[in-house]
Amino acid sequence: MRHILVIGAGRSASSLIKYLLDHSEAQNLQVTIGDLSEELAKQKTNNHKNARAIAFDIFNEAQRKEEIQKADVVVSMLPAHLHLEVAKDCITYKKHMVTASYISPAMQELDAAAKENGLVFMNEIGLDPGIDHMSAMKVLDEIREKGGNIILFESFCGGLVAPESDTNLWNYKFTWNPRNVVLAGQGGAAKFIQEGTYKYIPYSKLFRRTEFLEVEGYGRFEAYANRDSLKYRSVYGLDDALTCYRGTIRRVGYSRAWDILVQLGMTDDSYTIDNSEDMTYREFTNSFLPYHPTDTVEIKLRHAQKIDQDDIIWDKLVEIDLFNPNKKVGLVKATPAQILEKILTEKWALEPNDKDMIVMYHKFGYELNGEKKQIDATMVCIGDDQTYTSMAKTVGLPVAIATLKILNKEITTPGVQLPITKEVYNPILKELEDYGVIFKEMEVPYLGYNPLNVKN
Amino acid sequence: MRHILVIGAGRSASSLIKYLLDHSEAQNLQVTIGDLSEELAKQKTNNHKNARAIAFDIFNEAQRKEEIQKADVVVSMLPAHLHLEVAKDCITYKKHMVTASYISPAMQELDAAAKENGLVFMNEIGLDPGIDHMSAMKVLDEIREKGGNIILFESFCGGLVAPESDTNLWNYKFTWNPRNVVLAGQGGAAKFIQEGTYKYIPYSKLFRRTEFLEVEGYGRFEAYANRDSLKYRSVYGLDDALTCYRGTIRRVGYSRAWDILVQLGMTDDSYTIDNSEDMTYREFTNSFLPYHPTDTVEIKLRHAQKIDQDDIIWDKLVEIDLFNPNKKVGLVKATPAQILEKILTEKWALEPNDKDMIVMYHKFGYELNGEKKQIDATMVCIGDDQTYTSMAKTVGLPVAIATLKILNKEITTPGVQLPITKEVYNPILKELEDYGVIFKEMEVPYLGYNPLNVKN
Repeated sequence: MRHILVIGAGRSASSLIKYLLDHSEAQNLQVTIGDLSEELAKQKTNNHKNARAIAFDIFNEAQRKEEIQKADVVVSMLPAHLHLEVAKDCITYKKHMVTASYISPAMQELDAAAKENGLVFMNEIGLDPGIDHMSAMKVLDEIREKGGNIILFESFCGGLVAPESDTNLWNYKFTWNPRNVVLAGQGGAAKFIQEGTYKYIPYSKLFRRTEFLEVEGYGRFEAYANRDSLKYRSVYGLDDALTCYRGTIRRVGYSRAWDILVQLGMTDDSYTIDNSEDMTYREFTNSFLPYHPTDTVEIKLRHAQKIDQDDIIWDKLVEIDLFNPNKKVGLVKATPAQILEKILTEKWALEPNDKDMIVMYHKFGYELNGEKKQIDATMVCIGDDQTYTSMAKTVGLPVAIATLKILNKEITTPGVQLPITKEVYNPILKELEDYGVIFKEMEVPYLGYNPLNVKN
Repeated sequence: MRHILVIGAGRSASSLIKYLLDHSEAQNLQVTIGDLSEELAKQKTNNHKNARAIAFDIFNEAQRKEEIQKADVVVSMLPAHLHLEVAKDCITYKKHMVTASYISPAMQELDAAAKENGLVFMNEIGLDPGIDHMSAMKVLDEIREKGGNIILFESFCGGLVAPESDTNLWNYKFTWNPRNVVLAGQGGAAKFIQEGTYKYIPYSKLFRRTEFLEVEGYGRFEAYANRDSLKYRSVYGLDDALTCYRGTIRRVGYSRAWDILVQLGMTDDSYTIDNSEDMTYREFTNSFLPYHPTDTVEIKLRHAQKIDQDDIIWDKLVEIDLFNPNKKVGLVKATPAQILEKILTEKWALEPNDKDMIVMYHKFGYELNGEKKQIDATMVCIGDDQTYTSMAKTVGLPVAIATLKILNKEITTPGVQLPITKEVYNPILKELEDYGVIFKEMEVPYLGYNPLNVKN
């Protein structure tokens, strides 16, 4: 038997654990699933005979070392800042390691030690980061092999609600950490490069500078810019590309309405409201508007945000209960962002039978033999249910596939890695197709941002 | 001879030093002025026979202790974070101390030790904080002595250019630290209370929620809210006041134009622009606007900010050279805020003969015998020249007057103090009048924010 240790049995681990257990007979695997909650770990094993669910505390050094020693590969599905102790033990006991997290500077420092010991430390192999790297690098490499020169790369991803479960005016429900959604885009300007010019969008304009995307069979989406579109420019070999842009996908109209909440100040997480506990939702909204003895909260908000009488955006604000004088916030000394998260969670939580959806969209502009061309690649994945969500599938399956391939010595390059080489992305993307994670590539006319090639 | 040690001979120390030297004969004073630059210290002493200018390094412990031992009172005009070593030495050698800075928690900790040793540690006795405390407490105490109940307190202050030197479309020049002007309002929402309701204004709306103020003989001003209007609520005894608001004064129209720079993202200090050194002002502006092959920077900015063809705000943007394709930023890896500061400093620096102006405006609403009343108090101070600016006078003179009164045992209450007691504010406000710092108090109809007393 070969041993795999999976640390963390949360939402994103469901499909990962299922994959490993489904392959455990044929592949001769013993899978240990450790979580702070033994209950949760057990639930995910489904009483499989090759599974062992244990209560596992990452800060219990003796237990951590003992379990890691027993494993052949360790998968950490913990939050990124908790990987390091595991990683150090993996070096000590010479175990391979897999995570879906961004490579931290501390993780990167282990590169030499991993290489010395012939260990594969594979990271960023979930959805985003993960499937985005693999699917982008595949097309980029193909274009370069044909002799093409990349001039534009745009990449978009979003976790959304599936069309069949899309029942509110925002066309959005929380399919992942709501707090991250409320805080999205904060902490500095969005930075990217467009036709050779660096561009910066401040938070207060972020949701008004969206792009449209069309996905066949799914209609229109929009995207707002990610904080740092240039992070992977060098890694992807795009230092000379004129345009490099990454964005987050929402349904059309979401951003314009979200911007109202931003402009009011409701997404601010930098201060607390003293009397938040007893405040009604209506009072919360009113606290961002000027005082007036007779004007209503409604007319003050309409005026402040210039919302016409017949603008659908208004119904979106009403739908999330912003003017409700009866509901109380009930959070002690909360930040506006925490209060907004609470208000939205009541409206945007998935219903028991709701399904989620992942949408990914890449655009590759390139020049070949003096001609400008473009390939668009799209992927849509719908969740099965609320355990095997599209988020759990797209995050967990690449981790699981990579884990098995490392165990089977199909992925062997040692060191702290991300999945940007053919050795890694080709077999994983291929196997993902069996699970419905399928990229559709299309040749389309090159548009870029300067179709007439005018100079200004 | 009595010895006064003044540490720091910068802009705000000019009037302070002049006051002490002008009184040195009659009051038998020996004044030591220490600054990192001996040159600067000398310049401010004007060869006065009772002055001694020395090169002084606050981090030279031996020198610091030696000079403090020789003094009877120590005045620190250093930046606030540098007071502490001086303050500790003042405790050790039993010397009084005066600063114009906000009381830091570390300074507050010295309160018991100062009291034990019978030392007056007077702080916040410049302009703002300083004259604002004194002039507000004087009227508040008078109202309370009459039996009045304070229901509204608003206080505004601004450092501006004097009307005779007001030569640009913004009606503004830098009379103090430009960096603070560029960063004004950042770092969290503005917080205040209006008619019993807490209100929060996010940075992105701060410059669009201004109030108007009229000062007889000087015309109309506007004010935007300070970060924390509630800081002195308890200190001033205003915990039950329905309205408590503090703001910064500008000429009408400044804030609406400044908001354009905020909305573009030009005041952001949180990231650097890689290629800033070789960037032109026009390219800087363009970096905040969407790419387009033919549309000009001008039309893109007009569209993004919805600026009509005949809006004077446009001329303000042109005046500060935002569209200049020839001027280079010339700053290596600068933040947008640093670049904007440079651009504005070229346009908003005081000319050699320009004068500055300080405007302060308080509103006191109160109830007396069932009747609502209001007192407004205004103060305008114009600078003499670029050495004895209104900023130097209003910051330095209260410090100087307090220093002499402490030396003469007219101010004696020991401990870490701010000037909110009659013992302190009455004689100082009175003497400030001789130097043109005169508050005009007027009874006006009480308006508040709910003149009809309607409930909503």
